[in-house]
Amino acid sequence: MSDLADAVDAVDAVDAEDAVDAVDLAAWTCPAPLADSPTIVMGHGGGGAMSAELVEHLFLPAFRGPAAATELADAAVVALGGARVAFTTDSFVVRPLFFPGGCIGDLAVNGTVNDLAMVGATPCYLATAFILEEGTELAELARVAEALGAAARVAGVRLVTGDTKVVDAGHGDGVYINTTGLGLVPDGVDIRPGRARPGDVVLVSGEIGAHGVAVLSCREGLEFGTQVRSDTAPLSGLVAAMLATGADIHTLRDPTRGGLAATLNEIARGAQVGIAVTERAVPVAAPVADACSVLGLDPFAIANEGKLVAIVPAADADRVLEVMRAHPHGRDAAAIGTVTEDNAPMVVARTGLGGSRVIDLPMGSELPRIC
Amino acid sequence: MSDLADAVDAVDAVDAEDAVDAVDLAAWTCPAPLADSPTIVMGHGGGGAMSAELVEHLFLPAFRGPAAATELADAAVVALGGARVAFTTDSFVVRPLFFPGGCIGDLAVNGTVNDLAMVGATPCYLATAFILEEGTELAELARVAEALGAAARVAGVRLVTGDTKVVDAGHGDGVYINTTGLGLVPDGVDIRPGRARPGDVVLVSGEIGAHGVAVLSCREGLEFGTQVRSDTAPLSGLVAAMLATGADIHTLRDPTRGGLAATLNEIARGAQVGIAVTERAVPVAAPVADACSVLGLDPFAIANEGKLVAIVPAADADRVLEVMRAHPHGRDAAAIGTVTEDNAPMVVARTGLGGSRVIDLPMGSELPRIC
Repeated sequence: MSDLADAVDAVDAVDAEDAVDAVDLAAWTCPAPLADSPTIVMGHGGGGAMSAELVEHLFLPAFRGPAAATELADAAVVALGGARVAFTTDSFVVRPLFFPGGCIGDLAVNGTVNDLAMVGATPCYLATAFILEEGTELAELARVAEALGAAARVAGVRLVTGDTKVVDAGHGDGVYINTTGLGLVPDGVDIRPGRARPGDVVLVSGEIGAHGVAVLSCREGLEFGTQVRSDTAPLSGLVAAMLATGADIHTLRDPTRGGLAATLNEIARGAQVGIAVTERAVPVAAPVADACSVLGLDPFAIANEGKLVAIVPAADADRVLEVMRAHPHGRDAAAIGTVTEDNAPMVVARTGLGGSRVIDLPMGSELPRIC
Repeated sequence: MSDLADAVDAVDAVDAEDAVDAVDLAAWTCPAPLADSPTIVMGHGGGGAMSAELVEHLFLPAFRGPAAATELADAAVVALGGARVAFTTDSFVVRPLFFPGGCIGDLAVNGTVNDLAMVGATPCYLATAFILEEGTELAELARVAEALGAAARVAGVRLVTGDTKVVDAGHGDGVYINTTGLGLVPDGVDIRPGRARPGDVVLVSGEIGAHGVAVLSCREGLEFGTQVRSDTAPLSGLVAAMLATGADIHTLRDPTRGGLAATLNEIARGAQVGIAVTERAVPVAAPVADACSVLGLDPFAIANEGKLVAIVPAADADRVLEVMRAHPHGRDAAAIGTVTEDNAPMVVARTGLGGSRVIDLPMGSELPRIC
């Protein structure tokens, strides 16, 4: 997720004249009172409430001033030479570098390709920047680079510019990768969280939670036997197929850090709507459900790297779902809920027992360094 | 410098059919035999010969396949929706975060803005991605973000998308920043190393070596008293003024990592020309010269963050130099040499004593983590 694009709209509302010259940490209120513990904690990188606080209270005041008017989205859409260009950046710090189903190299391509796809853009170009730790084995780096190159070829994006920095041993963790993507948004396509409307149907493209569980299963000190593989995959082909139906897709998001819970909450807040989810309708593979059950994790809050959430008008839902199910990356797609006027901006799940529970925006991350 | 853009041209020459499936480290020959010491060392991040080896022998074979045809340049120039778009990425890992004359925040903006300017592009948009170390003080991060925002306002670029990741204490160093820039290349502008031609004049925009010496002066364990401040500055205004003369500027480069020595060598190799430099003509401020003398460093190999090298036809040199000197970031601009047919692809300096010396491409970096 591109957290700054999520919030640059707010910048335009800031009057540069009135803006204070420095960030006022004392006035910062947040569920975990940061003013009392004024240092970065792992939760600030979790993609949940603490990440949002950091953007809202630290980065945006600092970056005040002219900013492009984009809204809660995975990528910024900017005007450039007459074209509508999608632009998104992500750093990848996943640990370990290799995990069942993938590695940091393909993750870095797919994550950024997917952020472009979530605004309906056709991914075109990628920039890659490596921060390498002194002492990293060249053979391991080569495996990462091979995976990155292969993923780019699969996704049909061109790696056109890059950078390499090296930091001393003890100031990195093997390989960190930043990828920045450029894509073209076709004429007439307007996909963003703010377009979600009461009555719309919420679709998910498949079984959730695989990526987070796969990474966790090989985390040092936490190894457990499981057949769960990361779902890392490029979703631009699936999105192209969905767009080709002619349906007026309102919103697309990929539920990465913070999982489905964070994504649905961000959409609800971005559009000031409620979202009602039928818990039983959300596809979760049995091994993922089992692992979450044993570890006390909520599959709704676990990261995915090859899934998307789509918000579509009710009239279009069936044909979009049909096309999704016909695509290799959408075989297990399902309608999981509806957008409501009630309960805005909350996400409420109907449980299997007929009750209901509020699905909160996760505070930090249950699983740090998952992407 | 965007090392991948430097070399993607080579990718097009690789026959994907013939390409080996894995990087062959055993066949890798390089001045420092990496096959015998197959790990990343600090020199791989220095922007010199070792960085180039890593790109040529590891990244490019891995990234083989369709790549945009750009050539040795600070930014890739790609076609996007009918526009010529400049695209460049850089990570910043400078240590310490704050140094005389600047900090990692303004450096991250100016470095990327300058890479866009070096292909003649007007910088438009920036993406910023932070990798934060657990335990970093929010107040320190706020100072960095303030400096980044201020530098973007000065350079006239919009911060439109971003990302924040957090890594555990001991796996980072406070704040690492990646910035990726997007710019528009005006019609008719074709600025790249390959256009340097024998007879062209080599200009430099001011006194060299200040950034590296400024950072070094406050490096832990190395503090020494000096008045040298980093020259970090956005050069897009200077380049716009130079372009406005109507001169046919052949090549622009900003001599960052590896300094003037690396930049001139890369131009000589990129265009397969020789470059003759008059050592005495290269402006070096006295405190920089003194510091280099005491520390045994060569000012030609020290990083700059607010200087450029321009290669222009002899007929245009005087008026370009005049315009540079009239600009705040080019006051001390000077003609320092010529492009030659002889000695290709070497850089030869005429020394103050009337002799000559070859200026080599630095192997690694005399000063690691300078940007």
